[in-house]
Amino acid sequence: MFLTPYSITLPLASIVDAILKGERWAIAKAISILEDDGVQAREIVGMIFKHSGNARVIGVTGPAGAGKSTLVGKMIGAYRARGFKVGVLAVDPSSSISGGAILGDRVRMQEHALDDGTYIRSMASRGASGGVSSALRDAIRVLDVAGFNRIIVESVGAGQLDVKISSIVDVTIVVLNPQTGDSIQAIKAGLTEVGDIYVVNKADIQGANTLYNDIKSLVVDGRDAIALKTVAVTGKGVDELIDAVEHTLSKKLSNGYKEMVRKRVESELMDIMLSMLSKVVQERIKREDEEHRIIEKVLNKEMDPYNAAERIVAKVIRDE
Amino acid sequence: MFLTPYSITLPLASIVDAILKGERWAIAKAISILEDDGVQAREIVGMIFKHSGNARVIGVTGPAGAGKSTLVGKMIGAYRARGFKVGVLAVDPSSSISGGAILGDRVRMQEHALDDGTYIRSMASRGASGGVSSALRDAIRVLDVAGFNRIIVESVGAGQLDVKISSIVDVTIVVLNPQTGDSIQAIKAGLTEVGDIYVVNKADIQGANTLYNDIKSLVVDGRDAIALKTVAVTGKGVDELIDAVEHTLSKKLSNGYKEMVRKRVESELMDIMLSMLSKVVQERIKREDEEHRIIEKVLNKEMDPYNAAERIVAKVIRDE
Repeated sequence: MFLTPYSITLPLASIVDAILKGERWAIAKAISILEDDGVQAREIVGMIFKHSGNARVIGVTGPAGAGKSTLVGKMIGAYRARGFKVGVLAVDPSSSISGGAILGDRVRMQEHALDDGTYIRSMASRGASGGVSSALRDAIRVLDVAGFNRIIVESVGAGQLDVKISSIVDVTIVVLNPQTGDSIQAIKAGLTEVGDIYVVNKADIQGANTLYNDIKSLVVDGRDAIALKTVAVTGKGVDELIDAVEHTLSKKLSNGYKEMVRKRVESELMDIMLSMLSKVVQERIKREDEEHRIIEKVLNKEMDPYNAAERIVAKVIRDE
Repeated sequence: MFLTPYSITLPLASIVDAILKGERWAIAKAISILEDDGVQAREIVGMIFKHSGNARVIGVTGPAGAGKSTLVGKMIGAYRARGFKVGVLAVDPSSSISGGAILGDRVRMQEHALDDGTYIRSMASRGASGGVSSALRDAIRVLDVAGFNRIIVESVGAGQLDVKISSIVDVTIVVLNPQTGDSIQAIKAGLTEVGDIYVVNKADIQGANTLYNDIKSLVVDGRDAIALKTVAVTGKGVDELIDAVEHTLSKKLSNGYKEMVRKRVESELMDIMLSMLSKVVQERIKREDEEHRIIEKVLNKEMDPYNAAERIVAKVIRDE
C-alpha cells in the first residue's frame, strides 16, 4: 500500500540531488550505475543532462609507460593551485572475458585522494567501444554537474580507444616516452592526428630532444598543435602544459566550438543507437538460427556471411 | 552494344580464378578491393567463400616495440623450412582522419618478399572496428583459398583491436618486451586473457627472466597457456615457438573447435549487420535532424541523447 511508484525512483532522485551538491558517495554510486549500463543509467542521465555542459574536458593519451598517470597527478596539483576543481576518469582496457577493469594503478594520484576539489576514478572500458564511450560521456556529465570544472580523461594504452576518446574531449594531450626511442611508434599508434598538444615526458633522459624534434617536424609543424617537454616526476614543465591546455581551450571556444559540439552529439546518437541495435541484432541472429539454421548454413558454406547478414537485416529494418 | 553486364563481372571472376591459382597480383588486387569495402568486396567473398577454411590462422599481438615484426619474420622462415606456405597480414592502426594506413615498416620481413611460398601485406584498420574485422576476415579467406596454409596476423599496438583479433584467429601469441620492464603494462593492455602463448622476446637482455616469471605466475599458471622466451633478432627460441603453436592448434582442433567456429560465425554476422545498420542509422539521424531538428534539441537540452536515440531507433526497427 505504501509502495508507490516513487519508492523506485526516489533513491535515484536522491542520488542526483546529492551529485548536484558534489557529494562523493553519490558521484561514485552514479558512475557505477553508468558502468552497469542498465535502465537506471539512462534515468540518471535524463535527470542530470539539463545541468551539464559547464566543464571542460581534457584527454590524456599515449603509449603505456609514457608516464601518463604521473603527469596527470601533477596536472591535478597545478589546476588545484589555479582554483579549479578537477575530476579524473582513468579508462582502463576491458578484460574481454570478465568484462571488468583489471586494475587501475592510481597510486601515483593518491596524494590528491582526500582533497575535496579532486575526484579520481577508474572506469572499465567494456568490450563494445560504443559502450565505453557512452559510460565515459555520462561519467563526464556526472562530474560536470557535481561542480568539477576541469575533467581529465586518461586512457591506458594507445589504440583505437584513444582515437575515440579524442572525439569526446575538448583538448587532447598525447604523452610520449623517449625511452621507447621511436617516434615511429607514435605514428603507428595512430596518435599523430588526434593531438592538440604533444608532450615529450621524461625530458631529462637521453633521446628526449631527438623525440621532441621528430615530433615537431613530423606532427606539429604545419598543423595547429603544440609540442612541449615535461619531467612529470619533478613537475617540470607541468605549468607550461596547463597554460597550453587553457590556451587551446579558449582558442577552440572562440572558433568553431558549436560545430564541434554538434558533431559530437551526432556521434553520440550514433553510438547509442548502434548499442541499442546491437542487442536487437544479437537476438535476431539467435532466432534466425533457431528457425532457419542460418549459422549452420554459413558453416556448411551454403551461404556466405554477407548474404546471411543481409537476409537478417532486411527483417530487422522497417521499410520506408 | 558490346557492353553486356558481363563486362563488369568478368574481371572479378578472372581475379578470383587467378587467386585460386595463387597468383600474387590477384591476391593484392583482391585485398585492396576488400579494404575499399564496396559492392565488389562482397562479390569476391561470395565467389571464394566456398573454397575457404583450410588455413590455420595465428595472431601475433603485443605492445609496440616488443619486436613483433622481427619475430614474425623469423616465424616465416621456420614455417617455410617445415614446408608450409605462409601468408602475413599486418594490421596497422588507422589514421582516423585520412582513413588510410600510415605506414607499414615491413622492412624486417623483406627477405621473404621474393619467395613464392610467402605473401606479406599491410592492411589499414579503418575507423570502425567492425570494418577492420570484416576486411581482415575476408583477406584471410583470400590467402586461404590462394593456398597459404598458415596465415599470421600481426597487429600493431596493443588495445581493443588485439582483443578483437584474438577472436578471429585460431591461436593468439602475445609478445612482450622486457625493456619496458613491467608486466603490469601487459595486464593494463588487456592482453592477459586473450593469449594462448606468451612470448618474452629480447630474452637476452636484463629483466627477461623476471618478466618471464611474472607472466608465468600472473597469466599462464592455472590457465591453458604457454610461456616461452625468444630472441627474435637471432632466431633463438623461434622453432620452439612454432612447436607450441602447432601443439596448441592440434589441441584446439580436437577439442571444441566446431563450437569455436560457430561462435566466430555468430560474431562475424553481428559485425557485418552492425556495419550495414550503421549506414542506415547515420542517414536516419541526418533526416531526423532535418525534419525535426533533433540534434538542436539535444544541444538545447530539451531532450537527452538517450531519448533522441530511442526515438530514431523506434522508426528504424521493424515491429515484430
